[in-house]
Amino acid sequence: MARVALDAMGGDHAPRATVAGALLALAELEREHSLQLVGQTSVVQATIDELLAGEMAAHAAAARERLEIVEAPDVITMSDKPTVALRGKPQSSMVVGLRLQADGKSDAFVSAGNTGAQMAASAFVLGLHPGLARPAICTLFPTARKPVVVLDSGANVDCSPEQLVHFARLGTVYAEDMLGRPHPAVGLLSIGEEPEKGNASVKEAHQLLAASDLNFVGNVEGRDIPVGACDRGPIDVVVCDGFVGNVLLKFYESLAPTLMGMFAKALGAEREALEQAFKELDYSDHGGAPLLGVKGVSIISHGKSGPRAIKNAIRVAVRASESRMSDHIGRRVAEAAASRAATDGAPAA
Amino acid sequence: MARVALDAMGGDHAPRATVAGALLALAELEREHSLQLVGQTSVVQATIDELLAGEMAAHAAAARERLEIVEAPDVITMSDKPTVALRGKPQSSMVVGLRLQADGKSDAFVSAGNTGAQMAASAFVLGLHPGLARPAICTLFPTARKPVVVLDSGANVDCSPEQLVHFARLGTVYAEDMLGRPHPAVGLLSIGEEPEKGNASVKEAHQLLAASDLNFVGNVEGRDIPVGACDRGPIDVVVCDGFVGNVLLKFYESLAPTLMGMFAKALGAEREALEQAFKELDYSDHGGAPLLGVKGVSIISHGKSGPRAIKNAIRVAVRASESRMSDHIGRRVAEAAASRAATDGAPAA
Repeated sequence: MARVALDAMGGDHAPRATVAGALLALAELEREHSLQLVGQTSVVQATIDELLAGEMAAHAAAARERLEIVEAPDVITMSDKPTVALRGKPQSSMVVGLRLQADGKSDAFVSAGNTGAQMAASAFVLGLHPGLARPAICTLFPTARKPVVVLDSGANVDCSPEQLVHFARLGTVYAEDMLGRPHPAVGLLSIGEEPEKGNASVKEAHQLLAASDLNFVGNVEGRDIPVGACDRGPIDVVVCDGFVGNVLLKFYESLAPTLMGMFAKALGAEREALEQAFKELDYSDHGGAPLLGVKGVSIISHGKSGPRAIKNAIRVAVRASESRMSDHIGRRVAEAAASRAATDGAPAA
Repeated sequence: MARVALDAMGGDHAPRATVAGALLALAELEREHSLQLVGQTSVVQATIDELLAGEMAAHAAAARERLEIVEAPDVITMSDKPTVALRGKPQSSMVVGLRLQADGKSDAFVSAGNTGAQMAASAFVLGLHPGLARPAICTLFPTARKPVVVLDSGANVDCSPEQLVHFARLGTVYAEDMLGRPHPAVGLLSIGEEPEKGNASVKEAHQLLAASDLNFVGNVEGRDIPVGACDRGPIDVVVCDGFVGNVLLKFYESLAPTLMGMFAKALGAEREALEQAFKELDYSDHGGAPLLGVKGVSIISHGKSGPRAIKNAIRVAVRASESRMSDHIGRRVAEAAASRAATDGAPAA
């Protein structure tokens, strides 16, 4: 049973897309799950009424029983500076939605709003697991094989070797809990498979990962990601700093529509088949990107999310909550710290 | 008139692919250009004889008149460490081929061999233009618009802000001389368009580029590359460190075959049309990647280059030589240093 709080006011197409996504999710999810729409009550209620009076009339019963509105008067915009938004809008849908979880009244939070504000609010309201300095954004890249987990996808630039090792740990639990992959294979993104290839941080992280208890398969290269495997076998998790991860993610997202445009002429009548096939590359189909490391569940959706993407992000939130991923992350990080301390002969922090 | 030296021994399919590529190039190039095949004379001659006796018999006249063999007894392998190769194999086809240029007997060098060794040998034998600490690899990324110049694509990791500015300068001259684009628009690859977005080096480089005489359009993101443009207009040059550039390049190269595999089922009979279209993404079609910053012309070809890729790399070498790109780079770098020194009130280095 999961209670998912959705930021009704967040995203380019809110509140219509968020409310519609919530109604779609209720129709699809098992009946034990419920949703909390967080936002300005009057606006949210009007949107629900409008949708139920029209195209989504069939969703009325589910909405009555398993949908709750939680008042949050402040609205964070896409252009608000994260820290300014947190300080100046203490009753925003983000802070109120996350606080439900901190207070034990909710199990997960989803937002398609200002990503920087969501990261800051999640770390502030939920807190981080001890031993972690910052959360990481975790995304799924479609490949010729199964999707690979790529993190960090944009929360952290200039990462230390220790941070990269943390990402490997977070990604491992994500692959286990969310994708059902036992003993996930972790690759470190670099510019050659030899341990001595890479920038300073990557070279040191390679040594730390090789000495860790993780299933580390060594360095992987850009070319291995679309394949979902390297010379040494399949890859489940790709670790990189948030600068590289974000550049790659945005590059990949932009390719599908671009390639369509480039090849439309050559393809002619086959265009439709290709369009269908490219849907696999649509980021929104894979649901939201969890912010890993926080004590709880915070799922980041694309700002441009439509109802279907919102629904998928809610499904990710339910799965993250039910698999107890956050607890597992906390335990693994603590175990690793204890094991390091034992090896060093120093007391665990 | 350009005399291009080709490393006959370099590449996964050498010497057959390199010699065949040379013969193809001679057939295509204007008659004023000539080639120097650098390698073990007996091996090279035997390969020429074999090809001219068989499938390439029509190329015999061109080979007789415009193809010369230059003896180089040592062969650098793909797995040789660059510095070890330079020291231990002083008469390699790379060093001999580059020395022809340093001695005024050749105008350009092309190799599909060990890239690290080629970079080291090029910097050592040709030297760098004053003011530059390292050369940069420059590649072309196909986009929905015109190709964009991306550098550095792998010669330098952990780049300083000053290095990124140098890349902008080198890429600008490349776009002018090799692509015929006047006043090329330069973007700095980052994770947001705001100047304060990015890692430490990128943020400082943004300030330096904004204050420079270059046509700097600001930060660009991963998503702008496949489009070939950002919100502020078309992009000609994308500047990034060699870690990010190399990851992106290999990712892009690997996508075409991977997407083919992913979509083959969905496409069925349309597969052939798509394969044709994807040829645009074939890196080898765009010829070799120039190593910019050295005093001369050194073109890096893919290790897996076939005859067609070698031929295209030779065409790139001819164009680089005829446009006097290296001289222009030297002049621009010197002018920029002088202008900085004048602004600072200090004597130019």
